[in-house]
Amino acid sequence: MSVYLDYQAAKPVDERVLKAMLPYFNEIYANPESLHHEGDLATEALEKAREKVASFINAPDPESIIFTSGATESNNLALIGSALRNKKKGNHVIISEIEHISILNIAKYLERQGFKISRIPVDQYGIIKLEKLERLITDETILISIAGASNEVGSLQPVKEISEIAKEKGVLFHSDVVALESSIPIDVQEIPYDFLSLSSNDIYGPRGMGALYLKKGQRVNPIIIGGGQERGIRSGSHDMAGVVGFGTASVIMKREIHEEAHRLKGYRDELIKGVLESIPKSYLNGHPVKRLPHNAHFRFDYIEGESLLLGLKDKKIAVATGSACSSKTLEPSHTLIAMGLLHEEAHGSLVITLGRFTKKSDIDKLLHELPEVVKRLRILSPLTPPELLEYYKVVNK
Amino acid sequence: MSVYLDYQAAKPVDERVLKAMLPYFNEIYANPESLHHEGDLATEALEKAREKVASFINAPDPESIIFTSGATESNNLALIGSALRNKKKGNHVIISEIEHISILNIAKYLERQGFKISRIPVDQYGIIKLEKLERLITDETILISIAGASNEVGSLQPVKEISEIAKEKGVLFHSDVVALESSIPIDVQEIPYDFLSLSSNDIYGPRGMGALYLKKGQRVNPIIIGGGQERGIRSGSHDMAGVVGFGTASVIMKREIHEEAHRLKGYRDELIKGVLESIPKSYLNGHPVKRLPHNAHFRFDYIEGESLLLGLKDKKIAVATGSACSSKTLEPSHTLIAMGLLHEEAHGSLVITLGRFTKKSDIDKLLHELPEVVKRLRILSPLTPPELLEYYKVVNK
Repeated sequence: MSVYLDYQAAKPVDERVLKAMLPYFNEIYANPESLHHEGDLATEALEKAREKVASFINAPDPESIIFTSGATESNNLALIGSALRNKKKGNHVIISEIEHISILNIAKYLERQGFKISRIPVDQYGIIKLEKLERLITDETILISIAGASNEVGSLQPVKEISEIAKEKGVLFHSDVVALESSIPIDVQEIPYDFLSLSSNDIYGPRGMGALYLKKGQRVNPIIIGGGQERGIRSGSHDMAGVVGFGTASVIMKREIHEEAHRLKGYRDELIKGVLESIPKSYLNGHPVKRLPHNAHFRFDYIEGESLLLGLKDKKIAVATGSACSSKTLEPSHTLIAMGLLHEEAHGSLVITLGRFTKKSDIDKLLHELPEVVKRLRILSPLTPPELLEYYKVVNK
Repeated sequence: MSVYLDYQAAKPVDERVLKAMLPYFNEIYANPESLHHEGDLATEALEKAREKVASFINAPDPESIIFTSGATESNNLALIGSALRNKKKGNHVIISEIEHISILNIAKYLERQGFKISRIPVDQYGIIKLEKLERLITDETILISIAGASNEVGSLQPVKEISEIAKEKGVLFHSDVVALESSIPIDVQEIPYDFLSLSSNDIYGPRGMGALYLKKGQRVNPIIIGGGQERGIRSGSHDMAGVVGFGTASVIMKREIHEEAHRLKGYRDELIKGVLESIPKSYLNGHPVKRLPHNAHFRFDYIEGESLLLGLKDKKIAVATGSACSSKTLEPSHTLIAMGLLHEEAHGSLVITLGRFTKKSDIDKLLHELPEVVKRLRILSPLTPPELLEYYKVVNK
């Protein structure tokens, strides 16, 4: 039996979600724009799904949910759409050094369009320095975009404080909350986000589906133009099965998030304790407490994350190294470098993300196999110091 | 039993396609970017689907297929992406007067960005005037975008001739072929398109899924920026079930298109003959022969398309009026106006589109109900002339 511990990269669709989606492939399949009875049924399903997603983040107005093809598109719409819309007010956008690659690349795009981008540094735990944020804001600042949690090291950002600073300074605040959707409740009435990027798959809904939350009164320029669906903000015929699945996933996640997060936190802590105790020269990256309940991010001296990943692949355990979205590049993680790690340290990292279908036995299997894989790689590594090799010899007996 | 004759607006997903998709929701669900075994399986499925879509349009190189969230996004990518990429070569783009609303609105966007847009007029059948195209091309022209068939009136455009003119003049040629995908084979080796917009749902695949065909060597600027998926042209995690469904739908459509088109053409001709014979003052819009095998577009004097649609809705028959994508606006169809119809004529139109699951009995039912609905509305209409009312009285006996 294989063990999947890469929930941050992709999640299975919950059976209950899939069941709710099925009629929308070939029973209720009309275009909600159509005026006939079948179109009415589609419109009804679309608006019910919108209410469910709105309720998931406690948004009072379902209209604040704009369906998109996923969080990457939502990030584009939030950053490019609001920067272009507000360019007369200013040309300065603030992000952090450890944003998801989609935000980093959008920021580079905006720079080429003449916007000025500031990147807030983070501390050793990957948490942004709030006092730097305050100092970076100028009269030209129109937008702050900081993810609620690092999708890599799992550190939680002080979004409440960021939102207060943004509000006080009259700057818009966007947050990509994809990494925390499945384990930390989101409440737009408690934290006054202007824009949120949401992903359906990250709450066990279908892929190719996401949303942008737009606070009432906020607008963005569209980036996909056409028939004027989604209040003209996102054109294109609706993926009915997709929106229905996203809606259903929202209801389930909202109901189960506390219990699920609690369970995963237990597994995570067991995993962290087990790894740090059983493997010498192993370290936890990111904050020990202010971190996602489902994320454990380790670093091991003298070996490479890629080799570790392949070693675990042989044992039928799926994990990640570096950022989930760019694991095919061999660049060290920009997040770990921003946290002050050396290149060689960043290269020796392993990201383990748990999810709804993670079992205690998955953690046990990883704790059983990982020390052996690390040991084998270290014995082969020219970097391993003699005393550690000696240690392994002794322990082996 | 209700009758669905609005296939241009939305199609059900073929059972065989859905069956192929199912394992990709919660069995093979990893991110193809991931390096573990599950990621390898996803990559394999992704590339197989790409080959299938490429084969559907006879593209020799699977890499020429860029997966998107649908045809609207593909249109944006083709027009905005290539206009921005080629703006140093020129600032002139040619479309037709009867393009899909997504192309029309993208063209308006490009105008606001400083591009010059020409709109080729069409003849009374909705077919573009080729000689006008030749005259419109200048040294500044970078792109021609003309749909292979009108999604409204079903008229087929002379794409072969357009492609030859474009090639001779060194201008790029994009075509939105969504309206004809399900009934006319597409061959990019026979017609040298530079870009094609494809839709998955229009060949009975899942919604929220499409592709842009990019001829080898052509590039476009991305409009959704992020992790660099799809050769950096379209970022965002892949919708695995979606791409697999699109691939499967491509294989089935390629195999069955001739037989299916032949069958639908038979139904269509029966429908046209039946309507024109049984309903006085009824007309076929679009070309009698050069039209989509699955499209019949009628106009009826003295009544409104919306009333007709609602009358048929009462009889459980789903049809469309005006353009499928903007039926909720009350504007007369831009296509019919471009074809020279008066506003009141354009308002009295009805679009019937057939598809894979249309049965002979559906046509019979429409032919049975439509004359009665038209008659009832005409008797109520103040525009109906006395001699027609007299005719109905006589016929009624």
